[in-house]
Amino acid sequence: MFRLDINCDMGESFGVYKLGTDAEILDFVTSANVACGFHGGDPASMRKTVALALEKGVAIGAHPGLPDLVGFGRRNMAISPEEAYDMVVYQIGALYGFVKAQGGTVQHVKAHGALYNMASVNYALAAAIAKAVYDVNPELILYGLSGSELIKAGQQIGLRTASEVFADRTYQQDGTLTPRRQADALILDTKQSVAQVVRMVQEGKVLSQQGVDVSIQADTVCIHGDGAHALAFANEIRSELTRNGIEVVAIGKK
Amino acid sequence: MFRLDINCDMGESFGVYKLGTDAEILDFVTSANVACGFHGGDPASMRKTVALALEKGVAIGAHPGLPDLVGFGRRNMAISPEEAYDMVVYQIGALYGFVKAQGGTVQHVKAHGALYNMASVNYALAAAIAKAVYDVNPELILYGLSGSELIKAGQQIGLRTASEVFADRTYQQDGTLTPRRQADALILDTKQSVAQVVRMVQEGKVLSQQGVDVSIQADTVCIHGDGAHALAFANEIRSELTRNGIEVVAIGKK
Amino acid sequence: MFRLDINCDMGESFGVYKLGTDAEILDFVTSANVACGFHGGDPASMRKTVALALEKGVAIGAHPGLPDLVGFGRRNMAISPEEAYDMVVYQIGALYGFVKAQGGTVQHVKAHGALYNMASVNYALAAAIAKAVYDVNPELILYGLSGSELIKAGQQIGLRTASEVFADRTYQQDGTLTPRRQADALILDTKQSVAQVVRMVQEGKVLSQQGVDVSIQADTVCIHGDGAHALAFANEIRSELTRNGIEVVAIGKK
Amino acid sequence: MFRLDINCDMGESFGVYKLGTDAEILDFVTSANVACGFHGGDPASMRKTVALALEKGVAIGAHPGLPDLVGFGRRNMAISPEEAYDMVVYQIGALYGFVKAQGGTVQHVKAHGALYNMASVNYALAAAIAKAVYDVNPELILYGLSGSELIKAGQQIGLRTASEVFADRTYQQDGTLTPRRQADALILDTKQSVAQVVRMVQEGKVLSQQGVDVSIQADTVCIHGDGAHALAFANEIRSELTRNGIEVVAIGKK
Repeated sequence: MFRLDINCDMGESFGVYKLGTDAEILDFVTSANVACGFHGGDPASMRKTVALALEKGVAIGAHPGLPDLVGFGRRNMAISPEEAYDMVVYQIGALYGFVKAQGGTVQHVKAHGALYNMASVNYALAAAIAKAVYDVNPELILYGLSGSELIKAGQQIGLRTASEVFADRTYQQDGTLTPRRQADALILDTKQSVAQVVRMVQEGKVLSQQGVDVSIQADTVCIHGDGAHALAFANEIRSELTRNGIEVVAIGKK
Repeated sequence: MFRLDINCDMGESFGVYKLGTDAEILDFVTSANVACGFHGGDPASMRKTVALALEKGVAIGAHPGLPDLVGFGRRNMAISPEEAYDMVVYQIGALYGFVKAQGGTVQHVKAHGALYNMASVNYALAAAIAKAVYDVNPELILYGLSGSELIKAGQQIGLRTASEVFADRTYQQDGTLTPRRQADALILDTKQSVAQVVRMVQEGKVLSQQGVDVSIQADTVCIHGDGAHALAFANEIRSELTRNGIEVVAIGKK
Repeated sequence: MFRLDINCDMGESFGVYKLGTDAEILDFVTSANVACGFHGGDPASMRKTVALALEKGVAIGAHPGLPDLVGFGRRNMAISPEEAYDMVVYQIGALYGFVKAQGGTVQHVKAHGALYNMASVNYALAAAIAKAVYDVNPELILYGLSGSELIKAGQQIGLRTASEVFADRTYQQDGTLTPRRQADALILDTKQSVAQVVRMVQEGKVLSQQGVDVSIQADTVCIHGDGAHALAFANEIRSELTRNGIEVVAIGKK
Repeated sequence: MFRLDINCDMGESFGVYKLGTDAEILDFVTSANVACGFHGGDPASMRKTVALALEKGVAIGAHPGLPDLVGFGRRNMAISPEEAYDMVVYQIGALYGFVKAQGGTVQHVKAHGALYNMASVNYALAAAIAKAVYDVNPELILYGLSGSELIKAGQQIGLRTASEVFADRTYQQDGTLTPRRQADALILDTKQSVAQVVRMVQEGKVLSQQGVDVSIQADTVCIHGDGAHALAFANEIRSELTRNGIEVVAIGKK
C-alpha cells in the first residue's frame, strides 16, 4: 500500500508575536517540524507545540534554522560546515529537552529555510547537518528535498531519510523545484496540487515544466500552516490522499 | 572520608569574544558548568568545552542563564516561574545535544548569575527550575546555594542536590552570603579562603561575620576560571583539600 | 481652549511578525511612538512607520525599550541608571536616522513597557532617561505617566514634558494607576473611558476607585493600536474629544 | 603636501566581553570606526569609545555591520539592498545619538566585515549603503576599498569618499586584495607594509603579486587595534609616514 507523511513547520511564534495555526493544522498532519528559537520560536512556543503534537498524536521533529531572527532564517549565510553542525546539534538538543520533559520522542530533523536550501545543493553543509543528526541520535530521520544533497548525505552516514516533495511548487526537468522568481513556480490550483502529489506517490513521477516526466521519491509532503487557505488545503490534500488509497502516516511509524 | 566537588563556570566565550581559561582550569576542577548560549556561550563554545571536559574526565553540567547576553545574565529580570521552567528545559536540552553527540552524560544543572540568585530566595522560581531539571531527567543533580530555596525545591521534587559553598565569600549569621556591596564581602587571602572551605567540609561550620559559627552543608565549592590568580588559586585549593584528607571528586561519582 | 494629544505605540512588527494596525490607527492619533528594535520593531519597520507618520502628518517620537525581545520589553530588569541612559541614547539616535533620512523631525520620547513603569517610580532611572533625552536634543519632549518620577525628572533637567493619562485604566486615591492584577484595573466601557478622559482634560480631575476626586494633569492620552476594538475606540475618543470642544493636536505643535 | 588618514575599527567590546585596545590605539589614528551593536559593540561601548575619541581629538565614524553577533559580522548574508539601507541608517543614527550627546560630530561611515566586502563588489548593495549615508547626512564621508563599487556608488550619489588601502595585505594585478585564503595574502614584515603604504600615497602605485605596478588611490589606511603587535605597528607606521613628509590627518579635516 502507498503511504505518505504530511509535515508542517510550526511553533514559529515568538514572544508576543503569533504565527501560524498550529492547533488547527495539527489535525491534518502526521509530522510537526518544531522551530527551535534560531529563526523563530522560543522556549514557550516549543513547550506548547510539543504538548499539542503529543496530544494529537503527531510525530515531532526538530526544525533548526540559521541564527537570523529578523530574517526568519530565510537569508543565505556563509556559514562553515562546522557552524552548521554546531547549530543543528544545539537546536535538536533544545527540542529534545521539551520532548523528553513531556514523555515523547523526537522522530526527525528538517532544516529550515535558507539552511535547508543551502544544504540541498551543498554537500559539505549537508554532510555536516547529517553528521549532527547522527551524532545526537542515529535513530532520527533526516528530512530533505527529494533528490538533494541532504538526502545523499543522510544515506551516506547511515541515517534513515525522508524525501520531501511539495504540493504547490512546479518541478524542472532535472528534478529541482522551479525557482520562486519564475512566474510558473507556484501551483495555485488545489486540485492540480493534490493530483501532483498523488501521482508522485503512486507513480514516482512528476511532470516537469519542460513537459517531460521526471522520477521523484515522495516520502513526505510539506504543507503550510499559515496563509488564508492553509487549513482548507490541508483538509483537501489529506482527504484526497486517503480517497486515492494512500495511507497518511508519520514517516517513523512502522 | 570527607569529599568535596570543585565546580567552575566555563564555556562562556561567545563568537570572537574569549572569556576564561577553560582548558587550564579543567585540570583542577571535578565538575564543569557549561554556559548554554543565553547569558554567554554559543554552540561552538559548548561543543569545545564538552570535548575538553570529557578529555580531562571532568563531569559536565548545564549552566542555564537569563536571556541577557549584553548583561551576561547578571541582571535580575522579572520572569515568571513558567518562563524560568522553559528557559531551563531549553538550555539543558541544548547542552544534552553536545554531550550526547560526544558520548558523554550530563551530571548536573547549576543556574547562572541572576537566575541562581533570584531562585536562591524565591521558592516559586526555585521550584520551576527544579521541575525543569526533573522533567528532563530525574537523575540530574541540582546545584544550589547551601541552605537556599533551590536546594529545598530540589529535595522537594526528589532530585539529588549539591549544596554549594564559596571560598572567597564571607557568610552572615543566618547562613547567607555577605552581600557584595558590603566591604567585608570578599575573602582576599588565599589561605583564609581555603581554610574556610576545609572547615565547612570537615566540621559543617563557617564563622560568620557576626563572630558566631553557622552550620553549613558543603557538597561542592565554586571557583572562578578567570581573573589573574584563578589558576594559582585553583591549584592551591585542590592541593590543600587533598593535604587535609578531603577527597576531591565529582558529586555524581559514587 | 483645551487641547489633548493622542499617542499610540507603533512600529512594533519584527521581521515576518506583524503587530498592530499602524496604517489605520495613524488616522486618529497625533503622536506616534515608534519602537526602536530593543523590545520590538526592526530597521525596516522603523523606516515604514516613519514614512506613514510623515505622510499622515502625525508627530514622531522614539519609543525606547529594554533589550528583551522575547519578553517584548515588559519584564522589569535590574538595569543601572547608566545602562538606561545608554539604551535610550542609542534608540533615540536610531530613530533619528530614519526621521532625518525622510526629512522629518523627532518630537518626543516615550519609554516602553517595563522601562516606563520602572522609571515612573524610580527617580534615578527617570533622571538617567531624562538626561539621555536632554543630551541628544534638549528640544525633545519627554512623555511620562502623569505625576510620575519621569515627569519630575524631565522638568528638573529642563525638558518640556507631556503628562500621560490612560483612557482604559482606573486610578487610585494617590493618583497612580490601579495595578493590572486588581479586578477593577480596567475600564471596559467605551463611554466611561472617554468621559474619564474628557473630565481629566477639562477639570484636571479623575474619580479614584476610593470614590474621591484626584487632581491629574492630562497632556496626552495613550490609545492602543491592536486588539479587536482598537480602531473603533480610536475613532470614538477622537470624535468625542472634538465634540466636547477639546482640540486634538500633537503636543509639540504650538 | 601628501596626506593620509589612519583609521581603525574600535568600540567592538560587548557586555563583559572585551576586544581591542581602544584607549591606546587612539593615540596613533586620526579616524575611529565605532561599532554600532549589530556585529559587535553595545550602547555602553559606543558611549565610552566616543568619549575617548573626542578626548583624543580623533574623528568619529559609524562602523555598521550585519546583524550577526555570533559571527562578528564576518559571514556574508544574502541581504537585499533595502535591508542594507535600513541597517545602515539605523546604525549611523544610533552612533549619532552618542556623538550628539557628547557635543561631537560624525565624520564618516565605514561598513564592517562582510557588509564592506559584499558592497565592494556588488553595486546594488553599495548604492543602497551610499544612499543610506547620504539620506542621513550628505556631509558624511563614505569609506570604501580603493577602486570598489562602494567608492563608485558614493561618488555617484554625491558623497565625499575616502579610498581605503591596507598596509598588511598584498594586491593583485586588477587592484583587488589578494584573497586571504592564498598564501601570499598577508605582508608580515612591518617595514615592507609601511613602505607599501608610503608608495601608495606618494606615487599612487602598488606593486601587485604579478610583478606589475597598479594604480591605486590612498586616502586612508586601515590598521588593527588588536593582536600582539597592534600598538607597535601603529606607532611605526605613523612615525614613518611623518618621516616621509606625509601629513597624517583625519580625512574630514580641511
